[in-house]
Amino acid sequence: MKATQYEGNKTFTVIEKEIEQPAKGEVRIKVAYVGVCGTDVHIYHGMMDKRVTMPETIGHEMSGIVDAVGEGVSDYAIGDKVVVRPLDDRLVKPSDKGFNHICEELKFIGIDSPGAMQEYWNVPAFTLHKLKETTDLKLAALIEPLSVATHDVRMSGLVAGETAVVLGGGPIGLLVAMVAKEVGANVIISEVNEARIEKATSLGFDAVNPINVDLVAYVKEKTEGRLADVVFEVAGVQPALDVMTEVAGIRGRILMVAIHGQKKEVDLFKFFWKELKLIGARVYEKEDYEKSIDLITANELPFEEMITDVQPLTNIQQVFESIDQNPDGMKVLMDCSL
Amino acid sequence: MKATQYEGNKTFTVIEKEIEQPAKGEVRIKVAYVGVCGTDVHIYHGMMDKRVTMPETIGHEMSGIVDAVGEGVSDYAIGDKVVVRPLDDRLVKPSDKGFNHICEELKFIGIDSPGAMQEYWNVPAFTLHKLKETTDLKLAALIEPLSVATHDVRMSGLVAGETAVVLGGGPIGLLVAMVAKEVGANVIISEVNEARIEKATSLGFDAVNPINVDLVAYVKEKTEGRLADVVFEVAGVQPALDVMTEVAGIRGRILMVAIHGQKKEVDLFKFFWKELKLIGARVYEKEDYEKSIDLITANELPFEEMITDVQPLTNIQQVFESIDQNPDGMKVLMDCSL
Ligand SMILES: NC(=O)c1ccc[n+]([C@@H]2O[C@H](COP(=O)([O-])OP(=O)(O)OC[C@H]3O[C@@H](n4cnc5c(N)ncnc54)[C@H](O)[C@@H]3O)[C@@H](O)[C@H]2O)c1
Ligand SMILES: NC(=O)c1ccc[n+]([C@@H]2O[C@H](COP(=O)([O-])OP(=O)(O)OC[C@H]3O[C@@H](n4cnc5c(N)ncnc54)[C@H](O)[C@@H]3O)[C@@H](O)[C@H]2O)c1
Repeated sequence: MKATQYEGNKTFTVIEKEIEQPAKGEVRIKVAYVGVCGTDVHIYHGMMDKRVTMPETIGHEMSGIVDAVGEGVSDYAIGDKVVVRPLDDRLVKPSDKGFNHICEELKFIGIDSPGAMQEYWNVPAFTLHKLKETTDLKLAALIEPLSVATHDVRMSGLVAGETAVVLGGGPIGLLVAMVAKEVGANVIISEVNEARIEKATSLGFDAVNPINVDLVAYVKEKTEGRLADVVFEVAGVQPALDVMTEVAGIRGRILMVAIHGQKKEVDLFKFFWKELKLIGARVYEKEDYEKSIDLITANELPFEEMITDVQPLTNIQQVFESIDQNPDGMKVLMDCSL
Repeated sequence: MKATQYEGNKTFTVIEKEIEQPAKGEVRIKVAYVGVCGTDVHIYHGMMDKRVTMPETIGHEMSGIVDAVGEGVSDYAIGDKVVVRPLDDRLVKPSDKGFNHICEELKFIGIDSPGAMQEYWNVPAFTLHKLKETTDLKLAALIEPLSVATHDVRMSGLVAGETAVVLGGGPIGLLVAMVAKEVGANVIISEVNEARIEKATSLGFDAVNPINVDLVAYVKEKTEGRLADVVFEVAGVQPALDVMTEVAGIRGRILMVAIHGQKKEVDLFKFFWKELKLIGARVYEKEDYEKSIDLITANELPFEEMITDVQPLTNIQQVFESIDQNPDGMKVLMDCSL
């Protein structure tokens, strides 16, 4: 079988190796598609070299077919279409209060242990979700990032008729916008990249550039002064933090989806004044995956349009190089059926 | 009757004026006690001169007895013991979504219109809450600040058995701690003023100085690693903001009670990582006043100990001067029964 490896120094190699038997409690998956996530790009840039042991096969956005089952696995059979929820919570403790998906000793499969950018992948059976026979495997590679979005929207308590402002129209922001719209909310996307604004507009979204348009005035007008019921911070930059507390209305909920590596300035007065809520959201739980599997299987949202390129896995080096050169692209998949 | 007036320039005067008839829909209260709030001290320091029209009678923490009722007032009778919930929400709009207590055009009585630091006070009847015959009028002057605390605790969703960390053991922090304890939570107070630590300890609280003790390690040990379920930020300083995200456990709720005039640095990564919630809380709603009236009337919490001085209203100038010189004192009341 073929496997790819991150070697450090912005370099991936493609190696040939033996197909391994799944251990007890494990399943071997023949990987169909694997998506490239922002975190994978961070790894490629060497920004996570302290955490990733090299050489390492990375990747955690995927779809595939069960190819073999290890001892003690009864819920899955060869031929099942599956996706992996890449959270290894086996070190969970009582102090994690049952929030296994963010437990203190969580291991993220594909970062802390080998990932999906290979032909065959052995994973613990408890990480699997079964797809429907009709689920498209290409779209299914979007289930992991889509589950970030279903988690965020669920945590926000967004309901039909409310107004959601999504700050940042990248892959995660667009998926959040789709799920928010599916819930019945009025969605406004704020994005500074003109190609991405065009993309969002072509998908039927109301997308504005906050550099040209006064976002707060725009949302105020659209909501008869109510402003946003929910704001999703999915841009990860200071201007988004500055505007989130302005564009949220009374008792507005702000979802902190973006990852801010450093402490940032926040207008806490506005939290007091309007009784705002800031809600941190990280990855997903079982029910978020289930919701995403339903959405992908139904295929009524413009998921196809999220996939801007599909390349063979063996092109991995060029794939990462070209992602760097194209900030307009959305989701790039690699086809692992070599 | 006697009334006090803020004249600007750290000066209060005591004047003699006519007792006025209550207008339609108003009630005249013979004020019993009026407490001095941090906001009153801000006004005295000239920090709110843009908002306060001078000369102005200020004050909003009070208790009193109905002395006369205006036309159309049927719910109150002469002799009723009452407190005022000093929120004038008559300019509420649909965009305030029913959150009248923080509506955009809210007027705060005692800041934006005449307050309680006088012998008789005319207020709209809708601002009143009736006390019990047995309610002590001195303690009743604490109902307004206590309602800040009952509001904060209610908004936090704190339940019995959870651990609450209160950052700042000033008047509001101590009242929050009392209400949290009454709910059945384990309460830890963090305070840097040694006299206030002593006060909190004497009231039966576990109070620590974060300058001498590693607060996070302390709370971790007390909770078998769970850390705080709820953190109340009632200190209003950067070190409290730095520690709040550390001392909160997984899915911890942080109540932003303190008023931060400037943007401050916040560790948003921790919000993402532990799925923390930040909940802004401002003043109180009807039910918070009702809860506070019950608590004050039952008088089973150490409310008496909160009152560190009672002075005649006519001493107002010295009262404000001495508050400035005594950071250890808690609540100072003025007796208006001249
Ligand atoms: N919470 C989680 O579990 C989780 C999971 C995945 C990703 N993330 C985070 O979500 C964020 C978004 O991920 P992504 O892959 O979509 O990233 P991305 O960088 O592709 O998208 C961010 C978008 O924000 C836009 N932007 C920049 N400045 C802006 C501004 N001032 N106003 C509006 N938009 C602006 C950018 O043009 C870009 O399109 C990242 O911070 C990522 O780390 C979090
Ligand atoms: N949300 C509301 O509606 C509302 C209502 C009233 C007051 N407030 C605000 O609540 C806050 C507290 O009010 P207060 O009257 O008790 O004020 P206060 O200034 O008397 O109390 C603050 C306390 O924090 C302590 N402190 C300072 N640094 C600290 C640190 N690093 N760690 C722990 N404690 C520290 C101080 O020694 C002081 O005792 C203020 O910011 C006030 O404006 C808000």
